[in-house]
Amino acid sequence: MKVSVIVIGDELLIGQVVDTNSGWIARHISPYGWEVNDVQTVGDNADEIRRSIDRAFELSSVVLTTGGLGPTKDDITKSVLCDYFGGEMVTDNSVTENVNRIFARRGIKMNPLTAAQAIVPSSCRVIQNRVGTAPIMWFEREDGKVLVSMPGVPFETSTMMSEAVFPALRERFPSPVHIEHAVLMVTDYTESGLAMKISAWEESLPEHLHLAYLPKPGLIRLRLDGHHEDVAFIREEVARELAVLKDILGPAVLADEDLTPAEILLKECIEKGVTISTAESCTGGNIAHELTLIPGASEVVNGGVVSYSNGVKVNVLGVSAADIDANGAVSIPVVRQMAAGAQRVASSRLAVATSGIAGPGGGSEEKPVGTVCICARLDDKELYETAHFNGSRARIIDSATTRALILAIKLIKEL
Amino acid sequence: MKVSVIVIGDELLIGQVVDTNSGWIARHISPYGWEVNDVQTVGDNADEIRRSIDRAFELSSVVLTTGGLGPTKDDITKSVLCDYFGGEMVTDNSVTENVNRIFARRGIKMNPLTAAQAIVPSSCRVIQNRVGTAPIMWFEREDGKVLVSMPGVPFETSTMMSEAVFPALRERFPSPVHIEHAVLMVTDYTESGLAMKISAWEESLPEHLHLAYLPKPGLIRLRLDGHHEDVAFIREEVARELAVLKDILGPAVLADEDLTPAEILLKECIEKGVTISTAESCTGGNIAHELTLIPGASEVVNGGVVSYSNGVKVNVLGVSAADIDANGAVSIPVVRQMAAGAQRVASSRLAVATSGIAGPGGGSEEKPVGTVCICARLDDKELYETAHFNGSRARIIDSATTRALILAIKLIKEL
Repeated sequence: MKVSVIVIGDELLIGQVVDTNSGWIARHISPYGWEVNDVQTVGDNADEIRRSIDRAFELSSVVLTTGGLGPTKDDITKSVLCDYFGGEMVTDNSVTENVNRIFARRGIKMNPLTAAQAIVPSSCRVIQNRVGTAPIMWFEREDGKVLVSMPGVPFETSTMMSEAVFPALRERFPSPVHIEHAVLMVTDYTESGLAMKISAWEESLPEHLHLAYLPKPGLIRLRLDGHHEDVAFIREEVARELAVLKDILGPAVLADEDLTPAEILLKECIEKGVTISTAESCTGGNIAHELTLIPGASEVVNGGVVSYSNGVKVNVLGVSAADIDANGAVSIPVVRQMAAGAQRVASSRLAVATSGIAGPGGGSEEKPVGTVCICARLDDKELYETAHFNGSRARIIDSATTRALILAIKLIKEL
Repeated sequence: MKVSVIVIGDELLIGQVVDTNSGWIARHISPYGWEVNDVQTVGDNADEIRRSIDRAFELSSVVLTTGGLGPTKDDITKSVLCDYFGGEMVTDNSVTENVNRIFARRGIKMNPLTAAQAIVPSSCRVIQNRVGTAPIMWFEREDGKVLVSMPGVPFETSTMMSEAVFPALRERFPSPVHIEHAVLMVTDYTESGLAMKISAWEESLPEHLHLAYLPKPGLIRLRLDGHHEDVAFIREEVARELAVLKDILGPAVLADEDLTPAEILLKECIEKGVTISTAESCTGGNIAHELTLIPGASEVVNGGVVSYSNGVKVNVLGVSAADIDANGAVSIPVVRQMAAGAQRVASSRLAVATSGIAGPGGGSEEKPVGTVCICARLDDKELYETAHFNGSRARIIDSATTRALILAIKLIKEL
């Protein structure tokens, strides 16, 4: 089944908010055998919203909209939907009760603007929003096509889609075609180098299998999709081709799941009972942040040090001040001592350390912006290198974080 | 002038990559007096791409497309554009030279797949991509409407839009209407509470001014937009109304620029010459990361400690083990000692500290998931509180980070 998504809000069109809802929806509908056909982003403008609904219904049986339902003046979606599907605006007491309940839990008093949340088109069926005040509205056209209007807050949308909207859609539209995804996380290749390496295999794929390259700094996600009515057949075929591909790529495969480098490392550390710490200069806490974002991180992440100043490198991590003077803070001797220091102060077996020039300032001819020294250390085994990354400050930090995590993954995979 | 954006790539429709290009475009075209009218996200499918171009040209004079130009098999945009605008595929030697130059700089040899980048529709004018291998293609229809096709890599797109595409568009479409944006970052209010507080002022706004509420965890961005042909008039009017709004909201206004809390804090610290450090438990390095993501951070950020384990809290930050035993790690006494410890080990005047339960596990009846103790400390002045946040682990980390930064901003604003 094809699904169209409409993301509503002026804040998206002027770029002050990045839409993550459509991506979430896309990632979570495939197990139901559905596909996102297109995503439209429109402003808080009645004509635009109406036109986008028309277009979406041309393409799809189900239209999911997010946003445009807040209590303030700039949100007009609800009245557009009332015009579109007919009926009139009515007060739904179950919504008022729900809003009261949520406000009571948060210890806030209801005000007239939030009370307006309970006014909905009579043509919709309300699905109660357990985690927010804007109701979810289910509309059906005479031809059986469905539009579900949801709030724009990502946490509310994702929770309520999983709990209520997807189950209701599955009941309404049982699906015949199954879509199977598989993913390999691959390092050590450029996109085109990888394409050449696997071209013979790729050419031989049958029509119902499709390969996509999703390059990220430092690694490439290879996604193999299969479409077929026979679930068992397509699962088996995707699994078989994935095994062939893993064989071709060997140690360049970091994982056969869609995991971030931080997730791969954390999983390996939890499985092997290895504690982790970090010593970060140019990555400024990002490695620790990526690791601790993952549930269960506290099982193995002991902590870390952001040693931005040389004072912290020397006093907290025990780096030799003489080595900093002799080699500079961005050097292999310093980053190796940082890793050993992190192991020591946080009592961990594995440590990663970075020291580099994230820019835009601070570069020199010898060490230009993007130069990053990286060390991963497991017990007394080390992997270290001086890498050169391109791009903005954020991109250099991101690339250095990824590379440091990959070095740590390589070390722990040998354990 | 209206601009439509088409973002191309299967990876977007299955949610494995989040589109940041359309937001970037939206944020950066407004100084030219242009507006993004709509954004369409489509897969690597010829019919869909063709249909989305038709729709975009119905709405706008300029269509910007990103993505679908990589050297691998799943990218078909170029041949669709050749069909759409006529002509045939030809080799452009200037693109070959550009690709050679970029590969030489990266120390990589050209391969047949990247050579294919130089094959372009004869109907386009090529704009050389200084930072990547996929060429930028400029197409004009007989009615004068323009489509510019750009690569999907955000760094390449943003660089080349700023350097080449926007200047070329400005020359081609000189604009009469000017759009003026102004932003206030507001804390201490809920969205509906804020709407009630400023309703009288908001009702009195003339038609060419529009207010939008952009809530984020812990703060609300208020965006005031003005549209007018007279640049000086609309600038003055937006500035005057903004001043009135600031007056109404008083100390709840954190900044009158579109800055993140980390940017506001860093700016204040740099202006006042105040050094910063962090002591993070549940935020796991995210505060340090958000601060060090900003160019110039090294002027005032000395460093920090991610004290995930109690061992690191005691041994590195000097927190009393007895106080951890008596009050638990998530407690005001512990977080105050963490802040003081961060000041000491990193020799900073300002420190922020967090200790909390980010979930999904680890909660108790007394301290449920989302409980976070936060302390900001400047010299010997402190602001501390126990906050309760909702949502996922990532959202709780994000909310705690924002709140810690806001407490630090409140302290430094009093300096």
